[in-house]
Amino acid sequence: MRIALIGLGKMGANMARRLLRQDIEVVGYNRSPDIVNQLAEEENLIPAESLEAAIAQLPAPRIVWLMLPAGEITEQTLQTLPGLLQPGDIVVDGGNANYHDSQRRAAALAEQQIGYVDAGTSGGVWGLDEGYCMMVGGERAHVEPLIPVLQALAPARDAGWAHVGPPGAGHFTKMIHNGIEYGMMQAYAEGFALLQGKSEFELDLGQISELWRHGSVVRSWLLDLSAGFLQQDQQLANISPYVADSGEGRWTVMESIDQGTAAPVLALALQMRFASQDDTAYANRILAKMREAFGGHAVKSE
Amino acid sequence: MRIALIGLGKMGANMARRLLRQDIEVVGYNRSPDIVNQLAEEENLIPAESLEAAIAQLPAPRIVWLMLPAGEITEQTLQTLPGLLQPGDIVVDGGNANYHDSQRRAAALAEQQIGYVDAGTSGGVWGLDEGYCMMVGGERAHVEPLIPVLQALAPARDAGWAHVGPPGAGHFTKMIHNGIEYGMMQAYAEGFALLQGKSEFELDLGQISELWRHGSVVRSWLLDLSAGFLQQDQQLANISPYVADSGEGRWTVMESIDQGTAAPVLALALQMRFASQDDTAYANRILAKMREAFGGHAVKSE
Amino acid sequence: MRIALIGLGKMGANMARRLLRQDIEVVGYNRSPDIVNQLAEEENLIPAESLEAAIAQLPAPRIVWLMLPAGEITEQTLQTLPGLLQPGDIVVDGGNANYHDSQRRAAALAEQQIGYVDAGTSGGVWGLDEGYCMMVGGERAHVEPLIPVLQALAPARDAGWAHVGPPGAGHFTKMIHNGIEYGMMQAYAEGFALLQGKSEFELDLGQISELWRHGSVVRSWLLDLSAGFLQQDQQLANISPYVADSGEGRWTVMESIDQGTAAPVLALALQMRFASQDDTAYANRILAKMREAFGGHAVKSE
Amino acid sequence: MRIALIGLGKMGANMARRLLRQDIEVVGYNRSPDIVNQLAEEENLIPAESLEAAIAQLPAPRIVWLMLPAGEITEQTLQTLPGLLQPGDIVVDGGNANYHDSQRRAAALAEQQIGYVDAGTSGGVWGLDEGYCMMVGGERAHVEPLIPVLQALAPARDAGWAHVGPPGAGHFTKMIHNGIEYGMMQAYAEGFALLQGKSEFELDLGQISELWRHGSVVRSWLLDLSAGFLQQDQQLANISPYVADSGEGRWTVMESIDQGTAAPVLALALQMRFASQDDTAYANRILAKMREAFGGHAVKSE
Repeated sequence: MRIALIGLGKMGANMARRLLRQDIEVVGYNRSPDIVNQLAEEENLIPAESLEAAIAQLPAPRIVWLMLPAGEITEQTLQTLPGLLQPGDIVVDGGNANYHDSQRRAAALAEQQIGYVDAGTSGGVWGLDEGYCMMVGGERAHVEPLIPVLQALAPARDAGWAHVGPPGAGHFTKMIHNGIEYGMMQAYAEGFALLQGKSEFELDLGQISELWRHGSVVRSWLLDLSAGFLQQDQQLANISPYVADSGEGRWTVMESIDQGTAAPVLALALQMRFASQDDTAYANRILAKMREAFGGHAVKSE
Repeated sequence: MRIALIGLGKMGANMARRLLRQDIEVVGYNRSPDIVNQLAEEENLIPAESLEAAIAQLPAPRIVWLMLPAGEITEQTLQTLPGLLQPGDIVVDGGNANYHDSQRRAAALAEQQIGYVDAGTSGGVWGLDEGYCMMVGGERAHVEPLIPVLQALAPARDAGWAHVGPPGAGHFTKMIHNGIEYGMMQAYAEGFALLQGKSEFELDLGQISELWRHGSVVRSWLLDLSAGFLQQDQQLANISPYVADSGEGRWTVMESIDQGTAAPVLALALQMRFASQDDTAYANRILAKMREAFGGHAVKSE
Repeated sequence: MRIALIGLGKMGANMARRLLRQDIEVVGYNRSPDIVNQLAEEENLIPAESLEAAIAQLPAPRIVWLMLPAGEITEQTLQTLPGLLQPGDIVVDGGNANYHDSQRRAAALAEQQIGYVDAGTSGGVWGLDEGYCMMVGGERAHVEPLIPVLQALAPARDAGWAHVGPPGAGHFTKMIHNGIEYGMMQAYAEGFALLQGKSEFELDLGQISELWRHGSVVRSWLLDLSAGFLQQDQQLANISPYVADSGEGRWTVMESIDQGTAAPVLALALQMRFASQDDTAYANRILAKMREAFGGHAVKSE
Repeated sequence: MRIALIGLGKMGANMARRLLRQDIEVVGYNRSPDIVNQLAEEENLIPAESLEAAIAQLPAPRIVWLMLPAGEITEQTLQTLPGLLQPGDIVVDGGNANYHDSQRRAAALAEQQIGYVDAGTSGGVWGLDEGYCMMVGGERAHVEPLIPVLQALAPARDAGWAHVGPPGAGHFTKMIHNGIEYGMMQAYAEGFALLQGKSEFELDLGQISELWRHGSVVRSWLLDLSAGFLQQDQQLANISPYVADSGEGRWTVMESIDQGTAAPVLALALQMRFASQDDTAYANRILAKMREAFGGHAVKSE
C-alpha cells in the first residue's frame, strides 16, 4: 500500500511516521523541504520535490492525502489536483476544512470521476503514539480503499476510525467534536479558577486534578493532560491569558445558527475566547462609563 | 409634614434637597457633619448631631427614613432604632438592602409595634431633577403616612412610586430592576463594541446612539445617557475597562437559583463583570495551557 | 417630490401613508393589488400595476424605494431594476437585508451608475404615528436627494434619521440595533419571570412595569409597550412560549464571530430563542439520560 | 478495622459492599431496615437497629461514616451524634453537604474534641466495581485513621482519594467537581443535538460517540457512558427532556458569586437545567408578546 501525503507540518509529519512504522509506503511532499529530507532519512519516507513528483510515484488508483492548513493552500491544491489525477483516483482531505467546502469540493471532483474523502482527524501531538481518531465522510467506494491507512493511523485496527456519512460528514463531525472540546475546556478552566480562587483552603490543583482522574465523573483525557501540567506548575504565572481559537469552534456556532439548534454553552465558550483576545475591552469601558453616567459611580482611569 | 433623613450621601443629600424644595420638613443626620451644615444653610434642613437628636425633633408618629449603605451601618442603625422609637413609629429603609434582611427586620420591628417600610429607590444622580422611582414594600398602614413624601420624591404625584407588596417586596422589586439593568447595559455595550469593531465603516457612535433615541425599538434612558457621553468621546481611551458590581446584581442571580427560574442573560451579564474585574484571568491561562498540551499550540509568555 | 414605493406590506403601507400625509407623492406597487387600491382611495397614492408601471411614472432622477421581505424577492427585484432604470437613478433598500448583500448590490448597481442606498428602518407598527428611525448607508450624492423623504418618515425633521456611512453601513447599523433589541428583550423577560416566580409577594407586573416607566434606570420604549400589555393581562396564559427570530439577530452573532468581538449576551439571547422554538429538546433528553447512566437518577418518561 | 456506616441508600449500600469485600468490618444502620438485613445476609454486614446500637458496636476511637441525603437528616444526625460519642471519635460526612455547613459542623464537634471529616465522593452507581473518587477535608489527625477505609473504597490503594485541605475543603472540592460535570454534560448534549439536527447526513450518534472514545480530544468517562446508551437508542423518544439539578451545581454558581470569580459556562449550564424544568416558560411568553407589541408579529396561541 502506497499513498502520497501532502503537507508534513506538525500533524502531517507524525502521521507519516505512524504510517511508515506500520509498513504503509508514504510519498511525502512539503513546501519547505527540510522535513521531507528528515523523514526520508529517519523513516524511509519516499521524498518528492513537488506535488507532481509525488503523484508520479503512485500506482493507480492514486491516493493523495492532504494534511494542509485549512484555507487558501488547501483550496489551491484542490484546484491543481484534477489536472494531475485520473478518473478513479482519490483525494483525502485530512485537514480542518469547513464541511460546506468539502461538499463543494466533492461535487467538483466527482465531475471528473475523482473521489473525495474528508477525514476529520483528532489527536494532536499525541497521535503518533496513541493513534488518531478519524471521522470519515465520503462515498463507500472511495472510503474502502483507504481502510488499511485508516487502520494504521487509528489507535486500534477497528476502533478510532469510522465512515460516518457522505462527503462533508467527516468534517462536519470533526467540527462538532471541536465545538464540544471548547465547552469542556471552558468547564474545566472555570472549575480550576474557582478552586484557585478559594485561597483559604490552599488547594493543590495538581493533587486535585490527579485525584479526579481516578473514579470521578469528570475524568477525561483533557483532565489527564491538565493534571500533567498542573502538577508541574499551578500558578501559570508566565502563561499569557490569551486563548486562540480556530475555525471549527466558530463554525460550530454558525451551524447552531444555521440549524436554529440551541448550543448556548458552545457559543459562550467561543465568546469567552474572543474576550480573552481583546486587549481593548471596549464593551467594558462603555459599561464603566454608563455606571458613571447614571449613578455617579467613579470610573477608574488608565 | 416632617421626617428624619439619616444618611446624607450622594443619594440622601439629593433626596433631602428634593423634599425641602417641596415643603417637606427634613431633620437631617449624617456621620460626617459637613453635608448636614451645608444643607442646613442652603436648603433649610433641620440639622441634627446624632440619631437621637434627629429623632427627638420629630412629632409622633415618627418617620425615620434611612439612606445608608447596605450592610453593617444599616444593620447597626436598625439595632439601635427600637430603643429610640415608640410603638406606632415607622422606619423606612431607602437603601439597597437584601430583601431577606428587610423581611427579617420588618418582623423584628413588628414585635415592638414599629412599622418597617422598604423603599427601593432608582434614579441615581438624576433623581434630584427628574424624581426618584420608588418601589415600596410594607403594610398598608405603614405606607399610607409616607404618601406625601413619596409624592414629593417621585417624578410626578401619582407616577413613579407604588406600594408593590408586603415588607421585603420593595427591595425585591428593586433588586430585579437592577438585574434587568445589568442585562440591558451589557446588551448595549456589546452592540457598541460591534459597531466600533467594524472599522472600515468608520461609524460615529455618538451619531448612532443619538439617532437611535428617536423612533427606534432600543430607545431608553440608558441610551439617552450613552448618547450623551459618546457624543463627547467615543474612544474612551482613558476609561479603565473595569466594571464594578453591587449587591443587587448578585442577589438577582441568587434569586434565580433559589427559585429555579432561568435568568441566563442576567446571570451572564454579572459573570462578564466578574471577568472584567479579574486581572489574573486564571481560567484563560488554563485554557492556553490545555491547548498547548493537546495540540502543541504555542502559548504566549508574559 | 415623488418616489416609487415597492412593497406595501405592514411596514411599507404605513410608510406610504406617512409620506402622503406630508405631501410626498408616492407611486405604489405591491404584488397583491388590494392594498394599492386601498391606499389610492384613502390616501391619494398613485397606483401602479407593475414595477415597470411604477417606474414609468417617476421623474428623473428616479427614486425607487423597496420595502420588500429580505431574501429572494429583494434579490429578484434588484436583478430586474437595472434594466428599467437610467444612470443617475437611485434605488433605496428599506428592508432588512444582510449588509454583505447590500455592499454587493451597491457595487453591482454602481457599474451602471445607479445609486444604491441602504436605509435600515426601525419603528414597527408604531412608525406611522411616531415616525421611523432610519440608519442610512450610501454615497453622499445618493443620500442627499432622499433627504425630504427621510425627514418626512423620521420622528422629526432633524432627528431619527442619519447618514451613518458608506453602502452597507445602514443595514449593518440596523443589524446591530436588532441584536441589542434581542438582548434587552431577554433581560426584561427574565426579570419579569423572576417577579412572577416570587409567588408569595403576589406582585402585580402591570403595576411594576408601569412604575418603572417613571424615573427608573430601566425605563425604555420596550418597557412602555410591556407595561401596556401587562396591565391588561399578566398571566399570558394563552400566549405560546414560542419566540420567533429574524435574520438580523442571527447576523449579529455571525458578525461577532467574523470580527472576533465578544457579544456573549447577544449570542445567548439568540440561543434562548432557538431553545424556545425546539419542541424536541434533544439536548435535554441526552442530559437526563446521562444522569441516569452515571448516577442511577430516575428519568421521567413521556 | 471496623466502622459504622449510617445510611445504606443507593450510594451507601454499595460502599458497604465494597468495604466488606475488602475485609473492612462494617456496622450498618439504615432508617428502613430491609437493606440492613439484606447486606447482613449477603455480605456479612453487622446489622444495627439504631444509631445508638451501631455506635455501641464500635471500638474506640469510633469512626462513624454518614452516607445520608444532604439537608435535614444529616443535620439531625449531626445534632444527635455528640451525645453518643466520646472525645477522640471521628465523624465522616460522605454525603453532598454544602461546605459552609461542613465548616460549621467541624467547629461544633471540635468543641467536644470529636473529629469531623468531609469526604466528598464521586462515582455513582459504578463505584462498587470501579471504586469511588474521594475528596477529603479535615485535620490530618482525623484523616489518618481513615486511610484503610479510603484505600478500600478508592479505585486503587494510592489513587482516587486525597486529603485536599482543612474541614470543608473536601465538600468544596466535590462541589466544584459537580459544577464542572454540569458544564461538560451540557457541552456534550449540545454537540449531540447539533449532530442529530443535521438530518441530511443521517449520522449515527451511537457510532460517533463510540468512535470519539478512541484517540479523540473529547474522550472521557461521560462519553463512555453516552456511547453506551446511544448505541442502544439514539432517538430517546420516551425520555422526558426534564433535567433535574442537585445542590452542588447551584452552590458552585453561588460560590462564583461569593468569590466574584467568573464561571459563565457553569452558570449557564445550571440555567439551562432550570429552563428544562419550567413548563410555563413565562419569559418566552413575555418575549412573544413584546414582539407582537412593537412589530405586530403574530403570536401563537395555546
